[in-house]
Amino acid sequence: MTHLINDAAHVVSDYLEGLALANPHLVRLHEAPRFVARADHPGLGSGRAPQVAVISGGGSGHEPLHCGFVGPGMLHAAVPGEVFTSPPPGPITAAIEIADEGRGALCLVKNYTGDVLNFETAIEFLDPDGPAVESVVIADDVAVENSTFTAGRRGVAGTLVVEKVAGAAAQEGRDLAQVAAVARKATQCVASMGMATAAGVNPATGRASFDLHDGEIEIGIGIHGEPGRARIELAGADRIVDALLDPILADLEPSAGEDVLLFVNGMGATPDAELHIAYRRAHARLRDAGIRVTRSLVGSYVTSLNMAGLSLTVARFDDELTALWDAPCHTPALTRIAPLSGTIET
Amino acid sequence: MTHLINDAAHVVSDYLEGLALANPHLVRLHEAPRFVARADHPGLGSGRAPQVAVISGGGSGHEPLHCGFVGPGMLHAAVPGEVFTSPPPGPITAAIEIADEGRGALCLVKNYTGDVLNFETAIEFLDPDGPAVESVVIADDVAVENSTFTAGRRGVAGTLVVEKVAGAAAQEGRDLAQVAAVARKATQCVASMGMATAAGVNPATGRASFDLHDGEIEIGIGIHGEPGRARIELAGADRIVDALLDPILADLEPSAGEDVLLFVNGMGATPDAELHIAYRRAHARLRDAGIRVTRSLVGSYVTSLNMAGLSLTVARFDDELTALWDAPCHTPALTRIAPLSGTIET
Repeated sequence: MTHLINDAAHVVSDYLEGLALANPHLVRLHEAPRFVARADHPGLGSGRAPQVAVISGGGSGHEPLHCGFVGPGMLHAAVPGEVFTSPPPGPITAAIEIADEGRGALCLVKNYTGDVLNFETAIEFLDPDGPAVESVVIADDVAVENSTFTAGRRGVAGTLVVEKVAGAAAQEGRDLAQVAAVARKATQCVASMGMATAAGVNPATGRASFDLHDGEIEIGIGIHGEPGRARIELAGADRIVDALLDPILADLEPSAGEDVLLFVNGMGATPDAELHIAYRRAHARLRDAGIRVTRSLVGSYVTSLNMAGLSLTVARFDDELTALWDAPCHTPALTRIAPLSGTIET
Repeated sequence: MTHLINDAAHVVSDYLEGLALANPHLVRLHEAPRFVARADHPGLGSGRAPQVAVISGGGSGHEPLHCGFVGPGMLHAAVPGEVFTSPPPGPITAAIEIADEGRGALCLVKNYTGDVLNFETAIEFLDPDGPAVESVVIADDVAVENSTFTAGRRGVAGTLVVEKVAGAAAQEGRDLAQVAAVARKATQCVASMGMATAAGVNPATGRASFDLHDGEIEIGIGIHGEPGRARIELAGADRIVDALLDPILADLEPSAGEDVLLFVNGMGATPDAELHIAYRRAHARLRDAGIRVTRSLVGSYVTSLNMAGLSLTVARFDDELTALWDAPCHTPALTRIAPLSGTIET
C-alpha cells in the first residue's frame, strides 16, 4: 500500500508543519525541542487572562489526538513522539515551561509505561522555582487489566473526554487544583473498548500492526494494535457493538435515569456511515436500559494509523461535566459551539 | 474485509437512524419518503425567522456529505440515495416541500447524470403553487471533461464549499435569487482533483470499486472510483500533491495576491496525519506562487466508502465568500465558530 508521505523519517515533522500551516490562528509549532502550543498564549499578545495550562502528549499515529486538540477551550500544548513512541522528557519539560501562563500546568497522560515515565521525568527536570504541575493518568480501556505497554489499563479514546472537560475548566479560569480535580473526576466516569477488522500499517516501517484472518475481528484491541480479549469470527454491527458495550456497562455501572455521553470513535479507516450504524445500536441499548444519552460524539479522533475498526466510549455526565463538555472550544480537529439562535436542544 | 454493518439492504437506513439519534438537536429523519431535514424549522416551533431552504442530495457512500451537513448555517435538507445511486425524484420533491419555509428552495446538485435528471424531475413534480425553486449544478472536478456518470465535469469535494457559503447566505436572511447567486459564484471559484492509492469496498455488495497494482495510484479519480487521468507509479506526497495542484491552478488561474481557501479532503481511509502532510505541500506551493491561503480545511468530508486517497480543492475567496465561509455553522459533521475572545486570527 502506498502512503501519502515523503520520507519515513519525516512523517511526524511533515504532519506538524502541515497542522501549523493550516491553523496559524490556533497553534504554534516549536521545532527544537518539538511540541505544539496555543497561538493565543497571553505572552504572544492575545490579551486574554492567564489560564492553567493543560498539556498532553504521547506517541504519534493516533491523529488528530493530541496535537489536533490544541486551541481555545481544550489543550494548551501537546507533545508528539515518533509513531507509537513516547515523546522524550526534554520536549515535555519545554512544553510545560513555554505553555505555563503563571498559573501552573496539568499534564494529562495516557497510561502507557513510556508515557508515564517520560512525563514524570520531564516534571522532575523542571526548575524547582518553575511552574506548579499536577498529573492525571488516563486509563479508560476496560478490555484488559494489563497489556503489552502498560501496567494497569490502557488510556484510549476516553482521553478526548478528559482533555475537553479539563480544557474547559481551565478556560473558565479555575485554578490548578480545581482543573486537576475535574480531570480526575472525568477519568473515574469514563470507560472505553475497541475492536478492529483490519490492522493499521505504519508508514514509517511499512509493517502492519498485526494480522487477522478473513472474517476474524479482534475485540478489545489497543490503539497500537496490542492484543485485546479475543479474536473471533463475529458478523453484524449490532452484535459487535454489544460485545464492546457489555464490558463497558459492567465496569461503569450507570444507573437508570443517569445522563451519559456516548462517543463512537473510528480507528482511522472506518467510514463515517459505519460509525453511525454502530452509534445507532449503542444508543438504543443504553436507552433500553433507562440511561439517558444526553450528549454524543461520532468521528475518528483517537486513531491507530489506518486501522479499520472502532471503539465505544461511555462517560457518566453529571451537570458539571455536561456544562464543561458544552463549553465552546476551537481546535484544529474539534470545534464545539453554543447553539445558534433558534436551535432546539433535546 | 468485514464491514461494520448489519444487513447490506439496510446500510443507508441504519446510518440515517444513527445520525438522527446522535443529533436530535440538529436533524430530523423523515422515513417515507426518506430524507433528512433541519430540526429548527420554524414550523417546529424554533421561533427563528424563515430562511431560503438550501437542499442537496445524491448517492450514499460519500458520508458525511450530504446528510452530515444539515443544520444551522448550512443545509436545510439532504436526500440520500442508496450507495452510489441517485435518490429518486419522490423524496426530493418531499424534501423541498417539507424544508420550504415560505421563502423558496435552492437545490445544490452535483453534476452526475442521474442526480441532475432526478432533481429536475422532482422540481417538475412540485405543485405549481408550491415553493419557488432554483437549482445550481456543481462541477468542480478538473480531472476529466466527461466521465462514466457525467456529461461535463463531475461534482466532488468543492460541493462542501458551495453548501457552506449558500447555507450561510440563507442563514443571513437573503432571498432566493441572492442565495442562488452566491452558490453560482462559488461554483465558478472552486476547482478540485483527487487521487487514490486503494479502492473503497461497497458494504452492500462486497465489491471494490476498482483494482490497482501495488505501488500504482490513480490520478484524477472520481468519488465513485471512476477512472481519472492516469494510473501511474508515483511515490512521495509532495509529487502527488503537485500532480493534483497543477491542473487545479491551470484551471482556476488565481492571481498573485489573491485570497484562497485550501481544502484537503480524505477519501475515507486516509490518516489525518497524511492529509496534513499533503496540506503542507499544497500550502507551500500556493504561497510560493504569491497566493494567500487565508482559509483552510483538512478532513474526510466527501468520501468514497473506505477509499484510500485524497483530493485537493482550491477556492478563490473574495471578501463576500470569506465572510460567508467564516459565518458560524452547526451540523453533525462540520461546526465552525467565531474566534473565542483573545484568539489571534492570521
